[in-house]
Amino acid sequence: MEISKKSVIAVDAMGGDNAPFDIIKGAADAASSDVKLILIGDEKIIVSELKKYDYPEGSIEILNTTQVITGEDVPTVAIKKKKDSSMVVGLNMLKEGYAGAFISAGNTGALLTGATLIAGRIRGIERPALAGLLPNDNKTYTLLMDCGANIDCKPSYLLQFAEVGSIYMENVLGIKNPRVGLLNIGTEDEKGSAVVKEAFGLLKESDLNFIGNVEASMVSTGIADVIVCDGFVGNIVLKHTEGLAKSIMKMVKEELMSSKKSKIGALLAKGAFKNLKKRFDYREVGGAPFLGLNALVVKAHGSSDAKAISGAINQCNIFIKNDIVNKIKDKISES
Amino acid sequence: MEISKKSVIAVDAMGGDNAPFDIIKGAADAASSDVKLILIGDEKIIVSELKKYDYPEGSIEILNTTQVITGEDVPTVAIKKKKDSSMVVGLNMLKEGYAGAFISAGNTGALLTGATLIAGRIRGIERPALAGLLPNDNKTYTLLMDCGANIDCKPSYLLQFAEVGSIYMENVLGIKNPRVGLLNIGTEDEKGSAVVKEAFGLLKESDLNFIGNVEASMVSTGIADVIVCDGFVGNIVLKHTEGLAKSIMKMVKEELMSSKKSKIGALLAKGAFKNLKKRFDYREVGGAPFLGLNALVVKAHGSSDAKAISGAINQCNIFIKNDIVNKIKDKISES
Repeated sequence: MEISKKSVIAVDAMGGDNAPFDIIKGAADAASSDVKLILIGDEKIIVSELKKYDYPEGSIEILNTTQVITGEDVPTVAIKKKKDSSMVVGLNMLKEGYAGAFISAGNTGALLTGATLIAGRIRGIERPALAGLLPNDNKTYTLLMDCGANIDCKPSYLLQFAEVGSIYMENVLGIKNPRVGLLNIGTEDEKGSAVVKEAFGLLKESDLNFIGNVEASMVSTGIADVIVCDGFVGNIVLKHTEGLAKSIMKMVKEELMSSKKSKIGALLAKGAFKNLKKRFDYREVGGAPFLGLNALVVKAHGSSDAKAISGAINQCNIFIKNDIVNKIKDKISES
Repeated sequence: MEISKKSVIAVDAMGGDNAPFDIIKGAADAASSDVKLILIGDEKIIVSELKKYDYPEGSIEILNTTQVITGEDVPTVAIKKKKDSSMVVGLNMLKEGYAGAFISAGNTGALLTGATLIAGRIRGIERPALAGLLPNDNKTYTLLMDCGANIDCKPSYLLQFAEVGSIYMENVLGIKNPRVGLLNIGTEDEKGSAVVKEAFGLLKESDLNFIGNVEASMVSTGIADVIVCDGFVGNIVLKHTEGLAKSIMKMVKEELMSSKKSKIGALLAKGAFKNLKKRFDYREVGGAPFLGLNALVVKAHGSSDAKAISGAINQCNIFIKNDIVNKIKDKISES
């Protein structure tokens, strides 16, 4: 067994709704003797914020940058022009091998564009994809790929999403021989659009543990470990999960508050609701890895707080320790 | 004001998981002096079942058929070959004007194919679409169009879905000037696939109350009354709603049963949970109307029970009384 080197994780201190304060706090919370974190952004703010927290000495470095890519920036333009932005500098650190992972809660389009342009695709990967972890009622997670990086997909992309997603679930979540499902409008073999039908054939011929078509009603049941679809559909499912879970919780609350008896019931069941909320809390997962690149790029939720950032850092650490990038490289060069 | 004629509604007694018994019971429950129901199927069974129930004399007629289209039948073949099936006979009643609506819980593909072939599209309608009503946390419903009839859509189809859906919401649910949203992966104007982008332009130029792009996280918030998308995406959202609501209820139950205290709480809050379950019960809505045809065809859920069928019959009654077909005809001939 290889002795794992210390994971070096670069963090965009300036991206997201709660940057830089929550990002800096999240980094301080996740800092340990096991990882080295590089906080990229306005050095003055970072230094003054870090003073508020305790963390192992030498576990956090600061890299000063002078520009910020905002939500209003046009992705391709921003990546080209804002060379000294925390995002571009972070991606360049990956490219040069100074870091094994980069986390950003900033402009999604810019991050995906920049990651592909700067960090670069693994040779043989047609399209890197955003991998979202969804909670299921089996008390595990289902990986949904692609969650929004590729709107229009060829059948071969979907096959690769399945291959890469399987490696991720096997190595990061420890699921042996992950079950792969193809998201479709029916379970019968001949269902779906032309692209989906052709992808079905490719998946069936592959050496993956393909369980066939999966309907959307089955996504949250844990019937599959990896579910593949194009980025338009995946983004819809990911955001619909977030929105519907919130709406249902709101409805539960309303119903519970509608009578005295149920109000008391709600009080007694408070702990149970808290646990449930936790299961749908995206911060537990920390972010969606963008898989298929020469290094790990993690898109953290735009509204990430300290907890979400610290979750993303921990996820990156497992990823780096398990050498996922090289495992994906090996798998793709085989096929 | 026009004096409304009695609504004549044909019901496929032989389609669906619980046919014919639940369908017959549902019809008997919904029968009133206000509607005339025609139960189509095995006369012997229908007659003997109807004896069990009380309903106004003359409100139910029976039409005997000798064939049944099953879930295993290939739609186009079944519609062509099974001329004396309850489904084909029901659709022919629409065509000949003997009924204003036809409800079936049978083979979806066969029903959509048969409806278009036999009942026929309204002149000017490019593609009829399946309209699904989703509960939202505003205590109302959101109409999602298309829920699965058209996998690949042109931008002009999406515009028509919005027009037809608006007429439905205005006249059946009584919502003045319904807000129309375009389901997309971001709220910015320039987001989405080529088809979605072009549809955005058409909707913006239309005289509809178009509120712009709507993300999937907003579907359940009630921000829009009509949400348009292609049938692949719509089917995913519809089924995901059903599956996720079920999964969350299961998780709530598990969490509540995990401690003595929360168990007592759950007992006290039982009524509240029942109400919530009702809000996500597809049977309250009764079925998805297939809009854009010369008559109303309603696809009831495959697992419909008596309550769902009776809900669908009531929905059809409102639809016929409000003369929706002619309102759609007028709107389409204008544009």
